[in-house]
Amino acid sequence: MQLKQIKDGFQIIHNEQVLLNHTPNNPAFFVGIGYEKIETYRGNFNIQDQLVERIPLTHSQVGDDRVLLSYQQNTAPLLTLIFIPSDNGNAIISCKSENPDLNRFWIRLSVVESEKVWGCGEQMSYFNLRGRHFPLWTSEPGVGRDKTTEMTFLSDKYNQAGGDYYNTNYPQPTFVSSLHYACHVNSSAYADFDFRNPAYHELQIWEIPETIEFFTAPSFLDLVEKLSLRFGRQPKLPEWIYSGIILGLKGGEENTFSRLENAVKNGISVSGLWCEDWAGIRETSFGKRLFWDWKWSKKRYPNLDKRIQSLKEQNIRFLAYVSPYLCEDGELFPIAKEKSLFALDNTGEVALVDFGEFNCGVLDFTNKAAREWFKQEIIQKNMLDLGVSGWMADFGEYLPTDNLLLANGINSTIMHNAWPPLWASVNAEAVAERGLSGEIMYFMRAGFTGTQKYCPMLWAGDQCVDFSRHDGLNTVICGALSSGILGNAYHHSDIGGYTSLFGNRRTKEVFERWVDMATFTPMMRTHEGNRPDENFQFDHDANTIAHLARMVKVYKHLTPYLKHLSNEAHTKGYPVQRALFLHFENDLNTYDIQDQYLYGSELLVAPVHEANADEWKVYLPANETWVYVWDKQEVQGGQYITVPAPIGKPPLFYRKNSQWTELFNGIIEIQ
Amino acid sequence: MQLKQIKDGFQIIHNEQVLLNHTPNNPAFFVGIGYEKIETYRGNFNIQDQLVERIPLTHSQVGDDRVLLSYQQNTAPLLTLIFIPSDNGNAIISCKSENPDLNRFWIRLSVVESEKVWGCGEQMSYFNLRGRHFPLWTSEPGVGRDKTTEMTFLSDKYNQAGGDYYNTNYPQPTFVSSLHYACHVNSSAYADFDFRNPAYHELQIWEIPETIEFFTAPSFLDLVEKLSLRFGRQPKLPEWIYSGIILGLKGGEENTFSRLENAVKNGISVSGLWCEDWAGIRETSFGKRLFWDWKWSKKRYPNLDKRIQSLKEQNIRFLAYVSPYLCEDGELFPIAKEKSLFALDNTGEVALVDFGEFNCGVLDFTNKAAREWFKQEIIQKNMLDLGVSGWMADFGEYLPTDNLLLANGINSTIMHNAWPPLWASVNAEAVAERGLSGEIMYFMRAGFTGTQKYCPMLWAGDQCVDFSRHDGLNTVICGALSSGILGNAYHHSDIGGYTSLFGNRRTKEVFERWVDMATFTPMMRTHEGNRPDENFQFDHDANTIAHLARMVKVYKHLTPYLKHLSNEAHTKGYPVQRALFLHFENDLNTYDIQDQYLYGSELLVAPVHEANADEWKVYLPANETWVYVWDKQEVQGGQYITVPAPIGKPPLFYRKNSQWTELFNGIIEIQ
Repeated sequence: MQLKQIKDGFQIIHNEQVLLNHTPNNPAFFVGIGYEKIETYRGNFNIQDQLVERIPLTHSQVGDDRVLLSYQQNTAPLLTLIFIPSDNGNAIISCKSENPDLNRFWIRLSVVESEKVWGCGEQMSYFNLRGRHFPLWTSEPGVGRDKTTEMTFLSDKYNQAGGDYYNTNYPQPTFVSSLHYACHVNSSAYADFDFRNPAYHELQIWEIPETIEFFTAPSFLDLVEKLSLRFGRQPKLPEWIYSGIILGLKGGEENTFSRLENAVKNGISVSGLWCEDWAGIRETSFGKRLFWDWKWSKKRYPNLDKRIQSLKEQNIRFLAYVSPYLCEDGELFPIAKEKSLFALDNTGEVALVDFGEFNCGVLDFTNKAAREWFKQEIIQKNMLDLGVSGWMADFGEYLPTDNLLLANGINSTIMHNAWPPLWASVNAEAVAERGLSGEIMYFMRAGFTGTQKYCPMLWAGDQCVDFSRHDGLNTVICGALSSGILGNAYHHSDIGGYTSLFGNRRTKEVFERWVDMATFTPMMRTHEGNRPDENFQFDHDANTIAHLARMVKVYKHLTPYLKHLSNEAHTKGYPVQRALFLHFENDLNTYDIQDQYLYGSELLVAPVHEANADEWKVYLPANETWVYVWDKQEVQGGQYITVPAPIGKPPLFYRKNSQWTELFNGIIEIQ
Repeated sequence: MQLKQIKDGFQIIHNEQVLLNHTPNNPAFFVGIGYEKIETYRGNFNIQDQLVERIPLTHSQVGDDRVLLSYQQNTAPLLTLIFIPSDNGNAIISCKSENPDLNRFWIRLSVVESEKVWGCGEQMSYFNLRGRHFPLWTSEPGVGRDKTTEMTFLSDKYNQAGGDYYNTNYPQPTFVSSLHYACHVNSSAYADFDFRNPAYHELQIWEIPETIEFFTAPSFLDLVEKLSLRFGRQPKLPEWIYSGIILGLKGGEENTFSRLENAVKNGISVSGLWCEDWAGIRETSFGKRLFWDWKWSKKRYPNLDKRIQSLKEQNIRFLAYVSPYLCEDGELFPIAKEKSLFALDNTGEVALVDFGEFNCGVLDFTNKAAREWFKQEIIQKNMLDLGVSGWMADFGEYLPTDNLLLANGINSTIMHNAWPPLWASVNAEAVAERGLSGEIMYFMRAGFTGTQKYCPMLWAGDQCVDFSRHDGLNTVICGALSSGILGNAYHHSDIGGYTSLFGNRRTKEVFERWVDMATFTPMMRTHEGNRPDENFQFDHDANTIAHLARMVKVYKHLTPYLKHLSNEAHTKGYPVQRALFLHFENDLNTYDIQDQYLYGSELLVAPVHEANADEWKVYLPANETWVYVWDKQEVQGGQYITVPAPIGKPPLFYRKNSQWTELFNGIIEIQ
């Protein structure tokens, strides 16, 4: 990449491709001042900007490696850029301003008409981001996420929670362009990446970012490899994961263990038992909620310590649940308060966050003492010492933006997006200090830049228990693909979805279609959902139990292949679930596909995500012969084909000349 | 008012009150460049701005009567202001820029904490505008107008028509401040008046406005008088209006005239018969629509000419319907096309506007030939010569903003807001040329600056047939009060509301409460609504007919008083329906009241606008003794009182020492 002076301006060029073009009439940089107004309701944010100034930096003074930018010739420079190319085709632009009032920044990158862009974290609605803008702010993902649906309307009306296509637990100011470059903005401030304009991408950041990083590579896979090196790679999957499904069960010892036994007895291979309510529950007007006081509830699980040991003997791990908050009425709260481990409000009191009829303190992870205490007392003593092998490390999106004092002195609006990886790092360190990285499996929905390094497994957050376009089964695929190209190798979801509201209930069909997809992800895990009693569960009928048992066998059968993918993830940063174009860049038809994926390089999966489907249309990438797993028929790529779509036989293809054909051919033998 | 130089800046001052304060750190003027994106669907507009620059004009160079404004000291001036005070306490700021690219302008006016502001045209949801912003763009008013209601949700989903609190047929960039000044921006460009900031009002205009006008007066009434002089006054009400109600009936000659006869026979005094479908109908999938070919439909009303004459003999006038469009499949379209009277698209073809399964040409009223033809051929020949005494002059809000060439060469986005008064002026001239001003009564919903001069009667547009907060009966009061203080003396509405969608149907109660309010407006008129067969009509039961007959008698009984108000409107510009504070400025409690009004200075009306109300709470302004009309009880002002609220006895009070007590006391005698 190079910085090139042109008449009255400059360009940034890569392989004769102009990535950025700056002239007085079409400046690529703007700075300004704005005042945001952020309203928060239980993890949902209404963010408004009052923009006071937006100054086009029309005048540039270009030196060897730096550019001084100002508004017209005789005014003081407002921004200094330093261009730092590196030998590997990457480059960094460092940004500096002498004016501390400036808190808005815009950069425009040049666009080619046919260009696609992907990324921006874990995007649930749209994989190709062109034509839309994406506010980047970690939050609840929304319920319905589509203003034309009744679900979204009711969620907005009653819970301010309907959301929209861009809401996500895991945003990231990084995108990959089909022009074989990626761009990352090194800032945790609120950002809005706008890909609507036919002439430029405009990236807006609510501070002057320290640096903007560019990555280039000859292929998309190489680019993904570079990004995963930059953001960090996950350890290999723990061996115990491969032995079956993780069953999410709760409701106390009796209920949980009897249902587990029943599942095992019926032939379901179980690798883990995940009990959300290991620390107890509370009753609220919304129903049962977990008790956010992170230690074994002897009341709810009297023999949990012994149970965990006996499970281990059966080769079943125990998984728990934890979040970075402590409820005010728990036993741990006063201890943490006494030690001054919580973030404070501006009166010097512990800042309390409303989670719905209970308030919690926010452990201030910018305070070393708080990190150490949480790692030692909660994760290591209360969880690892109990024999826990994994957990849902929930939340991370709720950091308040006003009236919050953090130990590191940084404004909490700037820290809001940085919180998920900070929370992930507390988990990662606690595990690493015990030498258990790669052995313990915690999973998270919240994320941001750096999540890659600290989170061994993403979970897709809370889908509706349905096939809806913007909050149903298919969104999980989009989430896996978009997070995957930014270096998150492992992704999975609640089988059957989670959110059941306003009469929307999980059906047997939704559950079973979700099982069929989850079989081809790195980890299978069920969740009972927010209203277990009203929704279909894996053990509600014998037929579903049998179906699940068989699909778990398929998952287990693929262990050698999945281990290979896990190796690839560890050594090259390739995601397990891959966008088709990662392996078929010459087939432009693959660039917009977001409801199919390659499972590793060799298998193609096209999950059925509509109700009452008898058949399913699948695109097979060009220049490859594909074998349909269920009847071994060969099909030439480069076309759409339609296949039967019975439950238990999801549309699945492998490459004819794969090294793994024998393994794949074994799938149809599994009863 | 005066322009005053201060250190590094300037102020505009009125009576020691700083109205505008400009310093480098807090500039009051900004200019910029933006590109709007306007999506249109049947009169509903989705308007997005992409703001490219917003330059604070921090540096000012102040002369005797002018200010040069620029960004920092050494840059070229971007804006020149010329301050032109006048002896009567008014002032004009003329704005000029040498830079033709600038198309965004912001001015900030100083705010006092307790300040209220009113106006911005005919606002249906909020009378006091503080705390909200008001985009000013003539459009459909929205159905539901409240994103938390099912009605709005469904209207958005199926028709893109839900709207919001600020949508109105009649916006105007003018507001009145409780600091006894008014401010008007002389521009028809899109504007957004933002009253949310505690420190300033920020007015945004999408061009550099020619002038900004300030008006001051010692009292609110004087201010209204000044505004009505500035914008024009309406003629007195025609004499024939006073003789009863205008009944909206349609469905062909047989149905219309038999129902009219029945009404008269049952004692309803009728001043006019309004037939929307005089020009015929068409069948669409939405049901019957009017046929937009503005001439007598002999098929639908075979004997209309004779009928009109015979009605006149009974002292009943005939009213018709017209809009500024002609349907493509009508007889007039080819004539107007042949004469080149339509606005063209950029291929030189007649620009067609979609009105829902039929397309229309837009008569280009910036073309003198089109004006003359429409006045002569349609209004004068087809309507006045037929004996028509009035009409609904509908629409005016649909002027397309892209791909439209107008004869005056002005961009149609700038002309969009100017269209309603242009349309009104065609009507006004056609009537004036026949010497019939003040005799012909046409009524309009669309409006903008100048509507005052050309429109003799506002109509509140299309409410839902209900009591909903943002689209029901009460919004009509807000519309009357806000348009009233800007010099629109006459306001009325469809009795019972208009819009019946998604199962929402007009009830007997809604209809009768609406009658009770309409009795105390300058004109009573019914409308069958968009789905006549599914909604309650005035003649659906004997009891309602009797109630209506009695209330029309009350309206007629008040004729001497209404004539007096009409005189006041004509000579002083006072609206017939007045905000309480116009006469009680010392009672600050009156400043936020938007569901009561003074009918002239002497009567106070508090329409019941909720279902199942047995009683009603009324605020009586201070320093006055009020007499409750229905039992003559005296009540001291300055308090809320609760009165019974039976249908037919709306909460109604007069001033104890009024000159009109005898007339008002007569109301209870009416059977």
